[in-house]
Amino acid sequence: MAQTPTLQEVLDVVEDLWPAALAEPWDAVGPVVGRRDSAVGTIHFAVDPVSEVVEEACAAGADLLITHHPLLLRGVTTVEAGTFKGEVVHRLIESGCALLTAHTNGDSAVGGVNDVLSEILGLQDAEPLHPAAEGLAEEGLGRIGTLPRGTTLGEFAATVFGILPAVAGGVRVAGDRDGFVQRVALCGGAGDSLLSAAREAEADVYITADLRHHPASEAREAVRGRRPYLIDVSHFASEWLWLPAAAQTLDRALADRGYDVEIAVSGINTDPWDFFVVGGP
Amino acid sequence: MAQTPTLQEVLDVVEDLWPAALAEPWDAVGPVVGRRDSAVGTIHFAVDPVSEVVEEACAAGADLLITHHPLLLRGVTTVEAGTFKGEVVHRLIESGCALLTAHTNGDSAVGGVNDVLSEILGLQDAEPLHPAAEGLAEEGLGRIGTLPRGTTLGEFAATVFGILPAVAGGVRVAGDRDGFVQRVALCGGAGDSLLSAAREAEADVYITADLRHHPASEAREAVRGRRPYLIDVSHFASEWLWLPAAAQTLDRALADRGYDVEIAVSGINTDPWDFFVVGGP
Amino acid sequence: MAQTPTLQEVLDVVEDLWPAALAEPWDAVGPVVGRRDSAVGTIHFAVDPVSEVVEEACAAGADLLITHHPLLLRGVTTVEAGTFKGEVVHRLIESGCALLTAHTNGDSAVGGVNDVLSEILGLQDAEPLHPAAEGLAEEGLGRIGTLPRGTTLGEFAATVFGILPAVAGGVRVAGDRDGFVQRVALCGGAGDSLLSAAREAEADVYITADLRHHPASEAREAVRGRRPYLIDVSHFASEWLWLPAAAQTLDRALADRGYDVEIAVSGINTDPWDFFVVGGP
Amino acid sequence: MAQTPTLQEVLDVVEDLWPAALAEPWDAVGPVVGRRDSAVGTIHFAVDPVSEVVEEACAAGADLLITHHPLLLRGVTTVEAGTFKGEVVHRLIESGCALLTAHTNGDSAVGGVNDVLSEILGLQDAEPLHPAAEGLAEEGLGRIGTLPRGTTLGEFAATVFGILPAVAGGVRVAGDRDGFVQRVALCGGAGDSLLSAAREAEADVYITADLRHHPASEAREAVRGRRPYLIDVSHFASEWLWLPAAAQTLDRALADRGYDVEIAVSGINTDPWDFFVVGGP
Amino acid sequence: MAQTPTLQEVLDVVEDLWPAALAEPWDAVGPVVGRRDSAVGTIHFAVDPVSEVVEEACAAGADLLITHHPLLLRGVTTVEAGTFKGEVVHRLIESGCALLTAHTNGDSAVGGVNDVLSEILGLQDAEPLHPAAEGLAEEGLGRIGTLPRGTTLGEFAATVFGILPAVAGGVRVAGDRDGFVQRVALCGGAGDSLLSAAREAEADVYITADLRHHPASEAREAVRGRRPYLIDVSHFASEWLWLPAAAQTLDRALADRGYDVEIAVSGINTDPWDFFVVGGP
Amino acid sequence: MAQTPTLQEVLDVVEDLWPAALAEPWDAVGPVVGRRDSAVGTIHFAVDPVSEVVEEACAAGADLLITHHPLLLRGVTTVEAGTFKGEVVHRLIESGCALLTAHTNGDSAVGGVNDVLSEILGLQDAEPLHPAAEGLAEEGLGRIGTLPRGTTLGEFAATVFGILPAVAGGVRVAGDRDGFVQRVALCGGAGDSLLSAAREAEADVYITADLRHHPASEAREAVRGRRPYLIDVSHFASEWLWLPAAAQTLDRALADRGYDVEIAVSGINTDPWDFFVVGGP
Repeated sequence: MAQTPTLQEVLDVVEDLWPAALAEPWDAVGPVVGRRDSAVGTIHFAVDPVSEVVEEACAAGADLLITHHPLLLRGVTTVEAGTFKGEVVHRLIESGCALLTAHTNGDSAVGGVNDVLSEILGLQDAEPLHPAAEGLAEEGLGRIGTLPRGTTLGEFAATVFGILPAVAGGVRVAGDRDGFVQRVALCGGAGDSLLSAAREAEADVYITADLRHHPASEAREAVRGRRPYLIDVSHFASEWLWLPAAAQTLDRALADRGYDVEIAVSGINTDPWDFFVVGGP
Repeated sequence: MAQTPTLQEVLDVVEDLWPAALAEPWDAVGPVVGRRDSAVGTIHFAVDPVSEVVEEACAAGADLLITHHPLLLRGVTTVEAGTFKGEVVHRLIESGCALLTAHTNGDSAVGGVNDVLSEILGLQDAEPLHPAAEGLAEEGLGRIGTLPRGTTLGEFAATVFGILPAVAGGVRVAGDRDGFVQRVALCGGAGDSLLSAAREAEADVYITADLRHHPASEAREAVRGRRPYLIDVSHFASEWLWLPAAAQTLDRALADRGYDVEIAVSGINTDPWDFFVVGGP
Repeated sequence: MAQTPTLQEVLDVVEDLWPAALAEPWDAVGPVVGRRDSAVGTIHFAVDPVSEVVEEACAAGADLLITHHPLLLRGVTTVEAGTFKGEVVHRLIESGCALLTAHTNGDSAVGGVNDVLSEILGLQDAEPLHPAAEGLAEEGLGRIGTLPRGTTLGEFAATVFGILPAVAGGVRVAGDRDGFVQRVALCGGAGDSLLSAAREAEADVYITADLRHHPASEAREAVRGRRPYLIDVSHFASEWLWLPAAAQTLDRALADRGYDVEIAVSGINTDPWDFFVVGGP
Repeated sequence: MAQTPTLQEVLDVVEDLWPAALAEPWDAVGPVVGRRDSAVGTIHFAVDPVSEVVEEACAAGADLLITHHPLLLRGVTTVEAGTFKGEVVHRLIESGCALLTAHTNGDSAVGGVNDVLSEILGLQDAEPLHPAAEGLAEEGLGRIGTLPRGTTLGEFAATVFGILPAVAGGVRVAGDRDGFVQRVALCGGAGDSLLSAAREAEADVYITADLRHHPASEAREAVRGRRPYLIDVSHFASEWLWLPAAAQTLDRALADRGYDVEIAVSGINTDPWDFFVVGGP
Repeated sequence: MAQTPTLQEVLDVVEDLWPAALAEPWDAVGPVVGRRDSAVGTIHFAVDPVSEVVEEACAAGADLLITHHPLLLRGVTTVEAGTFKGEVVHRLIESGCALLTAHTNGDSAVGGVNDVLSEILGLQDAEPLHPAAEGLAEEGLGRIGTLPRGTTLGEFAATVFGILPAVAGGVRVAGDRDGFVQRVALCGGAGDSLLSAAREAEADVYITADLRHHPASEAREAVRGRRPYLIDVSHFASEWLWLPAAAQTLDRALADRGYDVEIAVSGINTDPWDFFVVGGP
Repeated sequence: MAQTPTLQEVLDVVEDLWPAALAEPWDAVGPVVGRRDSAVGTIHFAVDPVSEVVEEACAAGADLLITHHPLLLRGVTTVEAGTFKGEVVHRLIESGCALLTAHTNGDSAVGGVNDVLSEILGLQDAEPLHPAAEGLAEEGLGRIGTLPRGTTLGEFAATVFGILPAVAGGVRVAGDRDGFVQRVALCGGAGDSLLSAAREAEADVYITADLRHHPASEAREAVRGRRPYLIDVSHFASEWLWLPAAAQTLDRALADRGYDVEIAVSGINTDPWDFFVVGGP
């Protein structure tokens, strides 16, 4: 008969799926709040450990909140509740809800953020844009692969828009609307550090988030109107896509070990933007 | 009778209007290409020294291109034309067109980017968000001021959208559409470094560009749904507004010294984004 | 009628007594755990926020634990309970007990650690060994003053031993047992950074803690057997002396504002040493 | 017939015994004072190159003083006799006595400080706590090994006290006096950098010197009252034990090469502490 | 029939002769000015990209100037013509003359500066003083080899003087005029970083340029009047010797690929010194 | 009746003449070897503390050697006699001869190296090129002044050559032999750091030593053949000129305090170059 695992037992399964060794050196992944011997009957997945999400998880009686983004990426010397991060720590501990981060390890792993994006878009022969220093050949940041059939940039951008969860604002595109695209590079979340990797991989188009004026402008000037084109999407939306897949993967892995855990994915939009004003595309 | 000035004579006038001493320590402002004794009969203003803009200026026979953004912010050890920056250097020198940068000095100065934004929005009693280390009390980065009459965030965002030149994508807003706003902070271009200054200045809303997920999310969490709200606009659009004002100011200052120069403002949209896909606001 | 203050109201009083601005730049003082609007009816003072102390405070129902040493001097990216610091955070939040650090601000302030040591030893005309960069002339690290009557080093060391709370190990002395001492320098806690200041202040003897072989040896060689002699005491013991005085001072300051709070001083010895083996002095 | 070696010939033998390549990168080992062609008929061993030791060696007519601690660990730009290090340089050169340092190379080498401590305590299967980056598997900092028969922490601390030369102060112990110990980690001199290595090696007890409040307290909290226990001894005493063994080893190595040298070990206690005051263990 | 190559085609040949990978990490080699698709019918070689040399090349209608020294070793944020480097950039672009640097790659390569010096002096079995980190055993900085017949330092210095192009000032020599020399170390240009390498290689004499008082004095003191002696030559002169050889090598390599290019070597003395005053040797 | 001073008493007088506070932050001035209570009956002055000079001083029975250049500018961790600096330390201590450095304090002070050069050349209204951060207006590095009558660069270079002590090699000059010079900048020793200061001070000619190819070439290019011209002299020769003046000044200052000391100036040429080969000026 299925058992309720401890936090430690869940951590062991998570380490198998999204090994901490795949995280970037500057990252801070793993457990952030919680006791390793506490029982974990329900798990909540979300992108951001913000107040509204924490409130949702605690209200739902979750024992563990797994987020993509770290709460404490830069070290803190206080967790008093006057800061929003301290407030989150207090709320979680008072509710007996643990917090776990799967960030760049969740990006790089097989079945991680980038693999999920790649699969939803139907890329073939996808491989990492920046292979992991240590790890399998399939692991690393970003992905580059090929669409089964080429299309126009305009059509492809509409496809990208269509697969993403709705947020305020849309998908910005740099390039010729009628340009042909088939070779696709992508990086969920902020991927400006891979702009030149996408160019060197001879991508027709590069999908990522949080592109600012100067990196985008310099990347476009570097190719002088040619490829790769750029598609800038919501940071949140590009990473949210991973949550249902991650929940399902974890669910199976726990079941395989004889554990019975209820897993939910947060439906809260934590993109910081609430609405937008636009004249028309 | 009016005379055609040399580049050196134009530089002297520019130094009066937007003194190099107002530039941030990391910035690189002043002349980038050109001979100081060449005659400057026509001046072209633009935000970005990108190929299309340079082409436009050279094709129009401009003797001087003044841009807000530096071509060579980070030092280069080559200007060969295989790099886009080297190509720009070649094109300009071959066409006899000089290049001049007025960047953070143009932001901070009286009558600079932020003052123009502030005036177009009708702010009263505006003062710098981050006063210049050296300089007048009216000089510095960003501005904070008060609308003559309070309004809702939704109305105000529509106003902001309306004053900006059209680019692909719109204006993203974080906050309550019906929330009251009257005290406005702003910073043309990328202003995430002033997010806490806007909060400390007790702004109801902060307008800037290039806000990425994490700074925006953390800024919103820090106030837990309350003010300042955020309005994220196009980096290019927010700075383009300065160009007509700057052109007019320079025109008058040159005329005051008896110089006759033809001044034009580039109409090219150098926002890197060509189109966008959106479902609706 | 006396009222129970909130944590914020206690923080305001603490800031008056031991201002955060007096802390060294590398230090991390102020609130570490707790909600600012929670009621503080009982306060517990201790030197170290270690498990046993936290247990004592929580068991006693304390609402606030004030310690001299910071729990999180170096920033942490996790507070999960598998680390001892995370365990402390969990225990405190689960018990509703806040935590506050008064460290180098508590050393430097008037009435702080060094002043208390100085008074108990009866030093006259005491002043800081290293005056605070900003603050009153009476504030700063360490103290230097004069005994009303000179004595021998041996006698004085016995006096020092006598005033300190009992810990495992005694008081180590470098110098001539019969040497005359009257001018006394001291620094509660680890004070090797002030060894040369004590020499330059022409102290006959310098009392501090945590002196290692090389600093002590070099300091003695520098004076070639002459003064200042050195007295090395327990780090914990030298700082514990401050607790009763600090408790009393805070009690009065709270009462002056009409607050009624119960204050206790921990009796737990957090010197890390449990026993010692010795042949005889 | 046996010959008197030159300093260079002694240096060659020393390099075989305690190779300079075993020294830590920050260390400064090898000859410090002396002429390589001078005859070395008598050698003096000591822990510290302090005035009293140098005086003893010179008075005894030693041609070479070998110390564990470097005189000039941090580079000096003067050796004028007004500084104690300059005074030592003058005294040595005036007396024709060379000075040689065998520091972390003497710690790490086979037969070095840690091996001697390990042997005197009767540890079996001892190996380095932190193996040397380059060198044999038996070389490195610290040692970890097993007592033939387990004992209590109290008994073992008494044993440790008993084997060390007498200094002012005793042996401080953190842990349960009746706790069982058999697996022993040790590091002569200041060994706080190996505290976590001792824990990871699953030592029951770790013996070292110069443990300050915070490292000791944090190390004890990390194991929450369990093992490794800590035994803090005199820095000088822990390293002095090496001297007779080192003298004997060097004596044999010189004799093997047909050299006749008289070797003495300093009896001066250079622990900086002259006496201590204690109420009782 | 022979063809005129493009700049890109010349760059490909240069990369074969003097690979960029041989350059030191701090160096900046490769193309500096020019368009890769421009035709290169005439090439000019020189040591320094100074105004007079650039004037000569442009006046001669050169399409490419290859210099040993980089124009922009430290990155620049402007090339306006008010700086001499900017003036050179303008002059070259206006004349359609490209600029290419072959600096430490030209020193280290087979057939580079040091090999040419070595051959002209008739050294046998020459090998690098400081082998390249990556590359062939024959590649690296400086050379060490043997004269077929030993001679006196005085005679050898006269030979060195005789092979160098005439500049203001002569050849300075440290050492015994009658001392025997046969093993010769050399480094074209400023070679003080190889002074100890020359000593360790047991050279009788080391030839280099730009030796200042302190490095030369310390190098001579280190050997206390013995070898290696030092010969200090003109930086320019020592590197100029490479130009005819480099021109010839490039000419052949281009011809081998079926290209027809006219190659000239600048005769301008760019040693900064115009004349000198001397009493007699 | 006149007395023989101690080293300490000589140090006091030296501090008055050439205060240590005038030394550059990177410099190491003051006593290097010796006992402060030893008698100083004879003092020897020299530029460099090299073996031959030290031998001369010791052979002459000097009690104190004062040199311009520091023996230990970079800190040393050994003074064993196998290094030349260690050999010098041994020789001096064995001979009872102290060593004192007056380096950049001797450059900057009134009556220092630069003032002496300036006076010998007859400059009027001379003032520092780089005024000392703290000190009198007359103190600082380099000097700039005016010749009573202008002359040609060729004539002036001959004058400079004529006043310097004879060394191997002559005086190198960059500029027009017939160019007019009247405003003269100078810096004894290596003065490339003041090249731009000389230009900004509008000197006609700048005299200094140790100019390497690149600084000299760039300085000449920056003025494009115009002034300041450059005169490169021997580092040693330019500083030796100070010795007789310094000896006389110290002699008087000691006599003023009633001390009787014999002072000599070394006649050894410590320019590292022994001879030179030249075809003719």
